Amino acid sequence: MNQYFIVFSALGSVLALLFAVFMAKRALSVSEGTDRMKKIASFIRDGANAYLRRQYTVVIVFFSIMFIVLCIMAALGFLTWFVPFAFVSGGFFSGLSGFVGMKIATGSNARTANACRTGLNAGLRVAFSAGTVMGFTVVGLGLLDISLWYILLRFVFHLEMEAISSAMLTFGMGASSMALFARVGGGIFTKAADVGADLVGKVEAGIPEDDPRNPAAIADNVGDNVGDVAGMGADLYESYVGSLISACSLGVIAFNLIDAVDRTYAFAVPLLLAAIGVIASLIGSFLVRTGESTDQMTLLKALRRGTNTSAIIIAIAAFPLVWFMLGSSYIGLYVAILAGLISGVLIGRFTEYYTSDTYRPTKHLAASSETGTATLVIDGISLGMQSTVMPVIIVGACILISFYVSGLGAPEAAKNSIGLYGIALAAVGMLSTLGITLATDAYGPVADNAGGIAQMAGLDPIVRERTDALDSLGNTTAATGKGFAIGSAALTALALIANYVEKIEVIDPSLALDMSIMNPVVLVGVFIGACLPFVFAAITMGAIGRAAHSVVLEVRRQFREIKGIMDGTTDADYARCVDLCTRSSLKEMVLPTVIAIVVPVATGLLLGPNGVVGMLCGATVSGFLLAVFMSNSGGSWDNAKKYIEVGHCGGKGSDNDKAAIVGDTIGDPFKDTSGPSINILIKLLSMVSIVFAALVVNCHLFG
Amino acid sequence: MNQYFIVFSALGSVLALLFAVFMAKRALSVSEGTDRMKKIASFIRDGANAYLRRQYTVVIVFFSIMFIVLCIMAALGFLTWFVPFAFVSGGFFSGLSGFVGMKIATGSNARTANACRTGLNAGLRVAFSAGTVMGFTVVGLGLLDISLWYILLRFVFHLEMEAISSAMLTFGMGASSMALFARVGGGIFTKAADVGADLVGKVEAGIPEDDPRNPAAIADNVGDNVGDVAGMGADLYESYVGSLISACSLGVIAFNLIDAVDRTYAFAVPLLLAAIGVIASLIGSFLVRTGESTDQMTLLKALRRGTNTSAIIIAIAAFPLVWFMLGSSYIGLYVAILAGLISGVLIGRFTEYYTSDTYRPTKHLAASSETGTATLVIDGISLGMQSTVMPVIIVGACILISFYVSGLGAPEAAKNSIGLYGIALAAVGMLSTLGITLATDAYGPVADNAGGIAQMAGLDPIVRERTDALDSLGNTTAATGKGFAIGSAALTALALIANYVEKIEVIDPSLALDMSIMNPVVLVGVFIGACLPFVFAAITMGAIGRAAHSVVLEVRRQFREIKGIMDGTTDADYARCVDLCTRSSLKEMVLPTVIAIVVPVATGLLLGPNGVVGMLCGATVSGFLLAVFMSNSGGSWDNAKKYIEVGHCGGKGSDNDKAAIVGDTIGDPFKDTSGPSINILIKLLSMVSIVFAALVVNCHLFG
Repeated sequence: MNQYFIVFSALGSVLALLFAVFMAKRALSVSEGTDRMKKIASFIRDGANAYLRRQYTVVIVFFSIMFIVLCIMAALGFLTWFVPFAFVSGGFFSGLSGFVGMKIATGSNARTANACRTGLNAGLRVAFSAGTVMGFTVVGLGLLDISLWYILLRFVFHLEMEAISSAMLTFGMGASSMALFARVGGGIFTKAADVGADLVGKVEAGIPEDDPRNPAAIADNVGDNVGDVAGMGADLYESYVGSLISACSLGVIAFNLIDAVDRTYAFAVPLLLAAIGVIASLIGSFLVRTGESTDQMTLLKALRRGTNTSAIIIAIAAFPLVWFMLGSSYIGLYVAILAGLISGVLIGRFTEYYTSDTYRPTKHLAASSETGTATLVIDGISLGMQSTVMPVIIVGACILISFYVSGLGAPEAAKNSIGLYGIALAAVGMLSTLGITLATDAYGPVADNAGGIAQMAGLDPIVRERTDALDSLGNTTAATGKGFAIGSAALTALALIANYVEKIEVIDPSLALDMSIMNPVVLVGVFIGACLPFVFAAITMGAIGRAAHSVVLEVRRQFREIKGIMDGTTDADYARCVDLCTRSSLKEMVLPTVIAIVVPVATGLLLGPNGVVGMLCGATVSGFLLAVFMSNSGGSWDNAKKYIEVGHCGGKGSDNDKAAIVGDTIGDPFKDTSGPSINILIKLLSMVSIVFAALVVNCHLFG
Repeated sequence: MNQYFIVFSALGSVLALLFAVFMAKRALSVSEGTDRMKKIASFIRDGANAYLRRQYTVVIVFFSIMFIVLCIMAALGFLTWFVPFAFVSGGFFSGLSGFVGMKIATGSNARTANACRTGLNAGLRVAFSAGTVMGFTVVGLGLLDISLWYILLRFVFHLEMEAISSAMLTFGMGASSMALFARVGGGIFTKAADVGADLVGKVEAGIPEDDPRNPAAIADNVGDNVGDVAGMGADLYESYVGSLISACSLGVIAFNLIDAVDRTYAFAVPLLLAAIGVIASLIGSFLVRTGESTDQMTLLKALRRGTNTSAIIIAIAAFPLVWFMLGSSYIGLYVAILAGLISGVLIGRFTEYYTSDTYRPTKHLAASSETGTATLVIDGISLGMQSTVMPVIIVGACILISFYVSGLGAPEAAKNSIGLYGIALAAVGMLSTLGITLATDAYGPVADNAGGIAQMAGLDPIVRERTDALDSLGNTTAATGKGFAIGSAALTALALIANYVEKIEVIDPSLALDMSIMNPVVLVGVFIGACLPFVFAAITMGAIGRAAHSVVLEVRRQFREIKGIMDGTTDADYARCVDLCTRSSLKEMVLPTVIAIVVPVATGLLLGPNGVVGMLCGATVSGFLLAVFMSNSGGSWDNAKKYIEVGHCGGKGSDNDKAAIVGDTIGDPFKDTSGPSINILIKLLSMVSIVFAALVVNCHLFG
């Protein structure tokens, strides 16, 4: 009887995947347009496919090595034999999410451009359908992976609930590793191409963005797909699955102490919430349509109608879910879910406030371009750092509320674990409407690409205007999406740390954990952890710097050596730039992931479990701050440039515009590579620590 | 018998002050040179005096309000009546340190320029004498303040050791508040002037640095004095005193548990170490002299001979000190002192590695200017973030070593408190040679100003070459100085947090402190604390942005409206720029200090003592990282520009140089305002928490 939940969870997964197939058919039924459009689209598609193929080759090597390492650990008795396989399956599904998203995105960019020739609503329909495919694929695959493993472990291997949730935590490590590769690799690719194309094309040669004469133009568009789409897909798959499994596991631990409630129900609640989320997102996605006005507010309302409806459905449905599954004493957990849902929206709104050009901060930033690049950069960094305050307050309030309110009705001995379960459920609540929030986020790069194709294929300017309207809106929804990604990353990371502590206590109950922040081992752990996001950001930015440098030199070379590029009589050598970006990004993406895996283990061996907990908390806090800072600085520079280019503060081509383009270029790695990959990092560190917990407990130097 | 130490400490103080007077006489005995030089020097002196006068007016208002607040707290029984007076005295001496430093600096800049007309060694002699005055004044006043209070509390009011050390901790709060005003206010002034002068003068009008035609030239030179000199003096006074009193206090607490050792001796060790440091610095400062070669390595060796000798003397003398005062069981504390001394040097060396143009990172950064400003900025930020790794490892190792080795010989129950005393002694060890390290640091701005005067007075280019050689070396020693400042700030902050915890336990021994990092209240505290340095950096950079903006507009206006500036027939309106910078910086310096005082109290009232400890640790860790990152990015941009301008990567006037100037301008607030003020912030937060501890223990919402 108590096992029926897995049927609902599996059904939710199937429903999401079927809907994704349906939307994919709808998006791909439109024509790709003129021959020139088809040709450009196929260039982009080929480049993206080639990149992913080569990326997966590198990834397979990494996964094979890790598989062997995990098998050795299992043979030594530090892990169960499920772990290596769970690890690989997590990586596989995460990669698949990105792959499907990229396939549909490269399939529908020309179609969106073509639909925009008819009208704005037609364009939105295609682009949003493509985004929906991505959103529901991620959600569907996530639920599928969890359901399959549960069925296997429970009904084939007959494991206990603790063993199941513990084994499942480890496939999060696979998903996070893959996500990091996708985000970092794709992020380096896209930004190297973007920076290279902008610096030489726009600034030096003075040709517009997406101009077919720019040798890096195709690479730039390929980058949007492999970075913003495939990277985002793998990333959010990891976030979604991470939040679910950490909540399921904490639920089992918390209700282990309480006789009145079957702990299977505590495991079931996050999954059922996710299944309800599928239905809510489905209903919401049918409400997204618009008229022919390119006004941003009208378009935004069209999307918001969908996301808000979904959120309201979840907010209502979660109440009976918690009430009937766990009983009225634990209804505080409903408040935690609600707190998570609201926090996600609030962080998104503040992100929008700081980055959208309809508000004071970005307008002020645009104005600071009048005194040159230096003041624009200083003010942009200042803006991003300042923008960390509200997210910190929101997340802090969310942690306190979900912890204390969840524990209200619990017996004294269980208050703490129920409170931690509450924090984990807040993360699940935040991500429960991922199907539709990701759809509104993922359609942006499709619209961006559509604009590029419209430009390169020389379509009527009205088409570009329409794609620009869609794209510009995409920047706002991306800001909201980032709010959810960052907020949920912090909460999920905390839930994972709680799981780690629990795991340590299970491995060696005699171990006297002293996690006091005044314990020098914990403190040094905090220092090391807090340093990691800085190092990570440094490495990814350095990599982009190097990669962009090579693209800049190549583009300059082509302008110099290939006659006829500038008058349009000869095609630029696009493939060369794509290849250059591919090689650079693959070379550079390995180190960050290796660091994320080696450092937690090394810290554990040196400082012991207490040091690891300090390290994880340090990384979570400093990672959260750095991610918010970098995302918002980058977003604001981007929009300040757009604001200037539509005619404010001197307008397009002015010195102010030149300063703003430099600002935007600096912001690119901030917001699209370093920032988002830190979100993955902080969870991966916890996952790795959990997987290697037994090793660390058995041998460490200090603590 | 056991009270004789205070005589030595007072004698050390008098010796330092006498030596400062002697060196001041030596520096001021040289002629100020030509009439033009005298006139320019008096312009700078008047501007600096006017600024300080107005700054102190604002500061007095702040101190009066705080004095009243503290008196009310004392009347309510939350504080002893010594606190308000201790607070004011700390502020007074800190301000006095800055004032004396600035007086001597503005008195010896023209003299240094004039001496450089004779030769390099003569110039070094005057500039270094001025720096020495500053170094020994800070050390002398610091020891004087502590000695006077000890004599007052011990021999007049007959207080117990605990009560003495507890009361003395609170005058650190006055010193830190004053230091923050001086650093932030002076920092905004100097950078606004610098950015303004550079952007319009060098970039737009194409005239050299320090050109007399630039209306902001005098303001720029005034800024060097009020920011880099007066700010640094107040700052290092605060660091020095903070490290001493926190160590004294932890010593009393630690040896309270041990019958075999008189705890007065534990109080005495830091002060005696400081007194020995005065003698060591004095000996070292006599060894600083050079020949006539402008070669950097020769000059550097001249300075290093002084600092290294002093460090070796301390390293030797500290052994008998610990042995005879505390006994052979606690000789581990000597290792802690040594660890601190070595860590300071190591952090300084890595700072140098990342910022000096003799090493790969800055050379690489200079090369990245070839692809424009954007890549230079991205790479500079990347470099700074990456440079946090080694300091984190060094400080982490220093914490672990000093904690564990110090506790080795201690009884089990006292291991922890002896370990914390060890960490505090490491900070004292790091700062024990402050007399000479500050001298080598503070002579830089004097040489910088001398160069400005040489340029504006139209002296022989050989003079400028000599001052440039001295100034350039100043950048390297400043890097070392920053290493000490940042490293000691982190260790002192930790010692202060330990004092806070102790204070809480004394106020209410029944309070069950749960400082586990998994306690949500602690965790939320860490989030809030970690956010503070970001906010702080944001506010100071924003302030510089605003102030610089107004300077840029004013300089542009003068170039446009005042005829004859460019051909040198009319003097620019220098006073107007000085006044503008003064007004901006005074307006902007209040908010940061208010935040630093209000947030710890508010956090305490909301989250209780556990939350405060979390907040303090969060601020210390994130502040340390941000300070290292910002100092090193800024330092490297500065030197990359210099590297280009001496003829590499395109040389002076090239596009690369223009990009590098923008980078340098961005780095200015990073390295000279935001970075250093974060060091003060993290200590001030702890001091405020200690002063308001009784209030917080008695009323708080959570935790």
